[in-house]
Amino acid sequence: MTKIAADPSHPRYQSLLLRHRLEEAEKKGMLAGSALIAHGRGEAFDYLLGEQTIPSAMNATQHALSLLQSARRPVISLNGNAVALAGKELLQLAHKLNCAVEVNIFYRTPERMESLLNHLTEINQQESLAVEVLGANPDARIPGLEGPRASCTRSGIYDADVILVPLEDGDRCEALVAMGKTVVVIDLNPLSRTAQTASVTIVDELTRVVTNMIFLLESSEKTTPTDSYDNQEIVRQSLDHILTFFG
Amino acid sequence: MTKIAADPSHPRYQSLLLRHRLEEAEKKGMLAGSALIAHGRGEAFDYLLGEQTIPSAMNATQHALSLLQSARRPVISLNGNAVALAGKELLQLAHKLNCAVEVNIFYRTPERMESLLNHLTEINQQESLAVEVLGANPDARIPGLEGPRASCTRSGIYDADVILVPLEDGDRCEALVAMGKTVVVIDLNPLSRTAQTASVTIVDELTRVVTNMIFLLESSEKTTPTDSYDNQEIVRQSLDHILTFFG
Repeated sequence: MTKIAADPSHPRYQSLLLRHRLEEAEKKGMLAGSALIAHGRGEAFDYLLGEQTIPSAMNATQHALSLLQSARRPVISLNGNAVALAGKELLQLAHKLNCAVEVNIFYRTPERMESLLNHLTEINQQESLAVEVLGANPDARIPGLEGPRASCTRSGIYDADVILVPLEDGDRCEALVAMGKTVVVIDLNPLSRTAQTASVTIVDELTRVVTNMIFLLESSEKTTPTDSYDNQEIVRQSLDHILTFFG
Repeated sequence: MTKIAADPSHPRYQSLLLRHRLEEAEKKGMLAGSALIAHGRGEAFDYLLGEQTIPSAMNATQHALSLLQSARRPVISLNGNAVALAGKELLQLAHKLNCAVEVNIFYRTPERMESLLNHLTEINQQESLAVEVLGANPDARIPGLEGPRASCTRSGIYDADVILVPLEDGDRCEALVAMGKTVVVIDLNPLSRTAQTASVTIVDELTRVVTNMIFLLESSEKTTPTDSYDNQEIVRQSLDHILTFFG
């Protein structure tokens, strides 16, 4: 599909690298058919952000991290694109947060689940991590959703108080919020239902967010969430940034 | 990949139908690996337009049609996504305009070219059309481009005075304009280099544009291009429309 520029200073290096990761994941059967189209939509919105972490996104990232750090039962929910784009970094983050990850995909098939779970197990081994990987044996359901997409694990998503869900769809985000959870989403479209519904909306590209979170964890003391965080204001600031781009 | 909703009144019917067409085209080897990602980017910008033909796009469409109708040698350049999404409608348009189409793809391989040419030949037969399909035997080069992407046909793109290029990349759009041609592009991103460089920029979704052009051809007299058309102003109006969406 995509040749990676050998030189990381190439202006499109990061974008090509992400496409390459998706290509590899597709070969392994990790992705749904709509995965590449979804990635393309994200690319368009990232282009409007200037392909950078804007200040409001960094504020949301810091707040999300403080919520995850002070959570009773945090969990990271992973879908195909999240594993493909940042599987290693997300397991490193889970390791640092001492939380489990749960594979939870919209188009659930046994083959895709197995491929994703195997890939994460491999990363655990290669990186000498021991992050708990849930999702193989769902034993609970998210209320308000129908079919396989409602499946989840009781000791993971179902009982979590704070959940990081990169690249979530709107229905499931709403259902998780309705369960009373603090839902942190990473979504490049500030106008999406997911972005509008979540407790904390990080309008930024997934791999940048995870890199930022790991950097913050390594460089600063554990912080406590502030009451003054205003997610509507944060999302509005990302819209303002995009408007500046068009202006 | 994507199930089509059986009911055309389904709010996502059109979007799912286009994805289905891409899926079928991919199976036939018509698409480059980046095709689905490119389509996703388009989806995001179409979302910002409200998935509709906005007035400035209709003005550009009407002007483009008058240019194509009064051209000495008009031609329609087709890439993989254009053939996949609107192959039939584009051949019907070419038939009505009495012009040739030329398959001209960025990632040129013999297999993709053959698959695209065969598909267009099939459409010609099924629809009882006799549109000239060029591209199999390139015998000229677009100055200023390197490698296979410069290849074109002398009796097609090379000698054309007015060229309709849906979904063109920026480099080739610039090179065609530099050849002195009137270049009509269909591009959902009004900020892209293609949109900014073209002679006429239709900021709209391909299948809607072709449907609009065929409708205009069937419902009105041949029109002559007006001197007052201002493409910069047209593109600015599409940006304004997107800004309204964010506001």
